[in-house]
Amino acid sequence: MSLNDETLQELKSELLDELEKETPSKSLLAERLAEIRSADIGEVLEEMIEEDEELTAALTVLDILSTERAANVLGYLPGESQLEVVGELSDAQVLTLLEEMGSDERVDLFNLLGEDRREALLRRMARQEREDLKRLASYQEGTAGAIMTSDYVAIASGMTVSQALMRVRQTAPDAETVYQLYVLSLEGELIGTMSLRQLMVARPGAVVDDIMIKDVIRAAVDEAQEEVARIVARYDLLALPVIDTDNRLVGIVTHDDAMDVAESEATEDIHKGMSIGQLEDGVSRVPLWSLYRKRVTWLVLLVFANLFSGAGIAYFEDIIAAQVALVFFLPLLIGSGGNAGAQAATLMVRGMATGDVGVKDWSKMLGRELLVAGSLGLTMAIAVTPIGIMRGGDAVAAIVALSMVTIVLFGSLMGMCLPFVLERFKVDPATASAPLVTTLIDATGVLIYFTIATAILAQVSG
Amino acid sequence: MSLNDETLQELKSELLDELEKETPSKSLLAERLAEIRSADIGEVLEEMIEEDEELTAALTVLDILSTERAANVLGYLPGESQLEVVGELSDAQVLTLLEEMGSDERVDLFNLLGEDRREALLRRMARQEREDLKRLASYQEGTAGAIMTSDYVAIASGMTVSQALMRVRQTAPDAETVYQLYVLSLEGELIGTMSLRQLMVARPGAVVDDIMIKDVIRAAVDEAQEEVARIVARYDLLALPVIDTDNRLVGIVTHDDAMDVAESEATEDIHKGMSIGQLEDGVSRVPLWSLYRKRVTWLVLLVFANLFSGAGIAYFEDIIAAQVALVFFLPLLIGSGGNAGAQAATLMVRGMATGDVGVKDWSKMLGRELLVAGSLGLTMAIAVTPIGIMRGGDAVAAIVALSMVTIVLFGSLMGMCLPFVLERFKVDPATASAPLVTTLIDATGVLIYFTIATAILAQVSG
Repeated sequence: MSLNDETLQELKSELLDELEKETPSKSLLAERLAEIRSADIGEVLEEMIEEDEELTAALTVLDILSTERAANVLGYLPGESQLEVVGELSDAQVLTLLEEMGSDERVDLFNLLGEDRREALLRRMARQEREDLKRLASYQEGTAGAIMTSDYVAIASGMTVSQALMRVRQTAPDAETVYQLYVLSLEGELIGTMSLRQLMVARPGAVVDDIMIKDVIRAAVDEAQEEVARIVARYDLLALPVIDTDNRLVGIVTHDDAMDVAESEATEDIHKGMSIGQLEDGVSRVPLWSLYRKRVTWLVLLVFANLFSGAGIAYFEDIIAAQVALVFFLPLLIGSGGNAGAQAATLMVRGMATGDVGVKDWSKMLGRELLVAGSLGLTMAIAVTPIGIMRGGDAVAAIVALSMVTIVLFGSLMGMCLPFVLERFKVDPATASAPLVTTLIDATGVLIYFTIATAILAQVSG
Repeated sequence: MSLNDETLQELKSELLDELEKETPSKSLLAERLAEIRSADIGEVLEEMIEEDEELTAALTVLDILSTERAANVLGYLPGESQLEVVGELSDAQVLTLLEEMGSDERVDLFNLLGEDRREALLRRMARQEREDLKRLASYQEGTAGAIMTSDYVAIASGMTVSQALMRVRQTAPDAETVYQLYVLSLEGELIGTMSLRQLMVARPGAVVDDIMIKDVIRAAVDEAQEEVARIVARYDLLALPVIDTDNRLVGIVTHDDAMDVAESEATEDIHKGMSIGQLEDGVSRVPLWSLYRKRVTWLVLLVFANLFSGAGIAYFEDIIAAQVALVFFLPLLIGSGGNAGAQAATLMVRGMATGDVGVKDWSKMLGRELLVAGSLGLTMAIAVTPIGIMRGGDAVAAIVALSMVTIVLFGSLMGMCLPFVLERFKVDPATASAPLVTTLIDATGVLIYFTIATAILAQVSG
């Protein structure tokens, strides 16, 4: 069964108890660890590594595991923890671990190392290995190339089904997946694909070229990783092949890595929705200085944007001074407009990210928002009217109710349209964050509220 | 290659052009459709069905496809579109389609139908089929039971490797995946699992019980679907077996369905972050009335919460009347506090959802936020000071700068703590939405601002 937090804590103290003994029993530990899944050992080690005094314990645990297992566990650790471990190991030890890691994880770790260490390790590698690592390490972060693995099963064009099955059995121990196979021409071009399932039910003497699917869904090596995840999800793929500009197969992105990308992309989108820049690690681990930087940019920009609200208020200073009761409703009105507008913007941004809403749907979305936001505004105006009467009498109630409808309607339409406008100008629609939208609506709301107030008060007194 | 929006539009008009001819060539259409993937045909049909006058065209396309293909395409349509199609078909036609669908998609469609239709269809089914469908349809939405499929490959305990391989070949056409196999006892209990890869490299005469993994990661049938997705992602599974209370295997959730769940859960979280309730369909398709309902609840609640800000302002009416310039900075200060607080809350809520932050991390997070929010507050105070001097002189500048630091710091800490407090009281931490957090900070900000203003102005004039 999968472990929950509590059992993980128990496992951790159990391991620490044994390790803190004068002569810990390695065989007992090995036996216990054999029952635990790599992902779970990884989580326990991650916590140990965070506590400096437990780093040695973590290293002992890795040492007890077989190299293959240790490499596997290491792959589950966040980059920072990997670095701490690797910092304590000799080049020879690191090399053995790197060899056992999947090619995608090997590159990730390699890219984290300092240049000196990288050079030292490269010098000790066989030529073929070195070239492969250098090539994979050269792909830009956030692209298909950076998340793919080169441990795929390639079948040569012209092979028979039974030859292909033999090849699958041979490569099974090293390949990331053996369930989707790729047929290559002599030049290494990707010319077809087939599933192991297809292969197993095919006639053993048939040639793979006759049973493969020729129209292969594929991604270019510089394709954005979120697009890779989207394709894997859309076509329910086990793995997506990645090709270079000459249509040569250079790697595959497996479903589990695509799922990890989708999760981190969702996190990024959620953070962007609050004007937080892309964090390079989880919020509990990212350096404070980086967290500050990723939050401060928009906060300061929005301070200045907020000055427009102030300017609006300054412009209407006379009417405010004459009727201070109006200030009572100011946070309420601009807050409500901001909330409704942020909702509208978020619905569009997420709809665009999942492919539910396209640029061409703009007018349809506008019509829908007009109806929904109008109803929302009316409901909220009705809710606020009694309070308006109580605090300021009929005139103020009328001002507040009318302002509420207008601000909510206007704010929602602004929030809804902004992502489309951004997309149109090739800016990420997710820039239409809640803070940006509410700030814009604050300023607009001030103008609407006091304009309506001026008009109605002039009417009443006139 | 995967199709983009533009090519999909072209494909759609191509199909419509042919279908609008007096005698459309079915063989030509069939040939063209054979080249297109089911997911892409689904997307084109979805658009056709949305346009009422193209519904017939969509039906013709489905009719041209083989039943297997049509069932497959139907599975890619959103529920609403499926209903429109099924509404035009006879019971016999629906039955044939249902038979060809995967068991999970079959149940989803079945659950959407009206009771009369369901009864009519059940009456025409074979007993075994009927029982299976009724059982699957009885699981509550949002649980493992509701997203699992019963089309898995079961291996009987005691079988040899070659018998098991034979079984894989036999079930290959119908099973959702043949790459992960489940070993069952005579009573149907799940006692082990193995991958097809393991099976292929094992000695043909070996008994499966000797090579299977006995400690199977599994989920209970009433486990929440987001937990299912999390387990699949955490352990990089191809499929997660689902068991009933007697440990009997009742279904599996495959990686692609887990990925879909993860996506819709992310959407739900993003919407919740703006106080939008769970939508039953994409934002472009959900009925307007439902969209209104899911947005209005919190908006109206927050109108009343916003009254606290108003009450704060009313309490300080005298100082406002005496120094109207203070109102200039009001939206700026409470807006900034709200933005910083919403950031802090969002970081925690997402951290908790991905498992990066646990309840036990509370004090560590508080310490980190104290430092980051303090720095943010100082930066923003520095940014706003010159404007304070320009608009109101030294005293106002001091009030505004001091208020900024206090409000940003206080707001961020509130935003950060709220998700932990909610979690502690077993309320979904995602309830700490941006609108809720900003509204709370608005009220607090008003109090902080005018309290500081009163104190400093008394000092200056005194």
